[in-house]
Amino acid sequence: MSELRFNFVTGDWVIIAPERAKRPEDFISTRKKEQFPPYVASCPLCAGNEDKTPPETFRINKDGKWMVRVVPNKFSAVNPETNIIRQSTGVKKFITGAGLHEVIIDTPLHNESIATLPIANVEGILSAYKHRLSDFYKISYIEHVIIFKNHGLMAGTSLQHPHSQIVGTPVIPGQLKHRIEEALKYRDEFGECMYCLIIKEELNDGVRVISHNDSFVAFIPYSALSPFHIWIFPKRHSGCFGSITDSELHDLASILKETLQRLNIGLGNPDFNYVIHTLSPQECSVRYFHWYLSIVTRVTRTAGFEIGTGMYINPSVPDSSAKFLRNVKI
Amino acid sequence: MSELRFNFVTGDWVIIAPERAKRPEDFISTRKKEQFPPYVASCPLCAGNEDKTPPETFRINKDGKWMVRVVPNKFSAVNPETNIIRQSTGVKKFITGAGLHEVIIDTPLHNESIATLPIANVEGILSAYKHRLSDFYKISYIEHVIIFKNHGLMAGTSLQHPHSQIVGTPVIPGQLKHRIEEALKYRDEFGECMYCLIIKEELNDGVRVISHNDSFVAFIPYSALSPFHIWIFPKRHSGCFGSITDSELHDLASILKETLQRLNIGLGNPDFNYVIHTLSPQECSVRYFHWYLSIVTRVTRTAGFEIGTGMYINPSVPDSSAKFLRNVKI
Repeated sequence: MSELRFNFVTGDWVIIAPERAKRPEDFISTRKKEQFPPYVASCPLCAGNEDKTPPETFRINKDGKWMVRVVPNKFSAVNPETNIIRQSTGVKKFITGAGLHEVIIDTPLHNESIATLPIANVEGILSAYKHRLSDFYKISYIEHVIIFKNHGLMAGTSLQHPHSQIVGTPVIPGQLKHRIEEALKYRDEFGECMYCLIIKEELNDGVRVISHNDSFVAFIPYSALSPFHIWIFPKRHSGCFGSITDSELHDLASILKETLQRLNIGLGNPDFNYVIHTLSPQECSVRYFHWYLSIVTRVTRTAGFEIGTGMYINPSVPDSSAKFLRNVKI
Repeated sequence: MSELRFNFVTGDWVIIAPERAKRPEDFISTRKKEQFPPYVASCPLCAGNEDKTPPETFRINKDGKWMVRVVPNKFSAVNPETNIIRQSTGVKKFITGAGLHEVIIDTPLHNESIATLPIANVEGILSAYKHRLSDFYKISYIEHVIIFKNHGLMAGTSLQHPHSQIVGTPVIPGQLKHRIEEALKYRDEFGECMYCLIIKEELNDGVRVISHNDSFVAFIPYSALSPFHIWIFPKRHSGCFGSITDSELHDLASILKETLQRLNIGLGNPDFNYVIHTLSPQECSVRYFHWYLSIVTRVTRTAGFEIGTGMYINPSVPDSSAKFLRNVKI
């Protein structure tokens, strides 16, 4: 018999379907993954090809060379623009696509990834996120900033070279407004941060925890939307990623690398996205919201049911998937 | 410069991004599509293999043979169960996966599709939807029913034989609750059905209309979430698909077949999902909601931006895509 589990964060039910359930091993990628060389002459993100990108907006050096670079996205979804038009007639309402869209180049080498990079380099990537996030939020017409990574074709990437993206939009996404409402309702009803309680329960239960360190915990949530859907939460309550300290950056780098390494080894380098759900630096101290990083492993496809209901059918059991990842030898 | 357009139905913004925009022709599938024979011995849905499915719950005959059959899904996401347990402890809340999940077999032949079937057969499929929808809603523990089709691998189908699915869940999806709220707010503010206004404006503008007949209009909405995202709306206001009349069923069959034919010929048989967004038969006469059929052509992939914000980046211009489909010779 299947079970519907309520996801308090999304405010919706997830169908955990054992009739359709697969063993964790069934999600191991059987696709032959292309092996890349460290340098590709035509790749705009490889070290040596710096003239192929727009001028960089941020960089971190190591031993006299760049370790992480940030550049404007050549095919940006939004663009710098101070003359913003908002117009509404009937049911046609639009606003100028003002904003910023940049690419964080994770590494100079074409064939590395967070799973294989030293922790210090991962720290550099996260530090670049923090710096650009802070700068983006200083721009008056940017209302929200999202940081994400697309790894692999199924995850929608168009460039092989390891990179992340940061987009500042002139609107607050409806999804975030909805999640704030859910979190506020919970806080109002139970007098606690819903996210803090989820962290506490997951740590207590333990069965869905993949690993944890001083500042962070990685787990497959009780109401995971899809197989190997992983949340990495800071143990310290904070509404915004921007408040992360240096030692927390180190701990996040460590747990992120470890988690992606477990996915990489355990499932044969699966495609995945990760995103950072955060409020703005002005909202760090709110009591009801808690920033986190969400990894969506792309081992299944959404279909008509998900499109038509917004609900997910998860053909896996969160406890078994977490155990599988815990047991991966890294 | 890109533009953010507000989608009144979803209550969220869509980025229409011309910097990333492609011409309609760029979405033509270059994948070699497998040609199927009319009968496949191992296919549980082919005529002649009726013993491979659970006993049928509905059928429509033609010339002494079945034209459309409905059978329980062997790998159902939810199951009949009257002993429903609802339990909540802390942030773990669940409910028994009670419900019904059936497969509508669109045609006895393996190699047909709605785009190629006679209109009378499509009418049969839609009629089966109507009958099962009505029966599903008679079951006390079913709160919501969704009807959908997955066509092709990118759309998440696991069986090649043309079929649709119907799922009755013991909960109302959060997405629907949210859309009802949006529609209610609109009705409250403007005294009109938001959907009726969208239909009126799209018919007036004309540029995004693909085709229309006495009862239905097919168009690519002004704030389409993705390339070739198509809405088919009944011109007559009604909250539920269950209220469709016989002549409307005919008109819907005709416009659905035509639209899928245009997609099939114009884009080289692309993968797609369609879903029917409807309220229950008890809500047919509500003033604020309007049922419709939504076609999501799977020519792009959702990535980190969509996962992290719930917003969509649409790399196409709705007007040009509609014009492209209008010009397809059928």
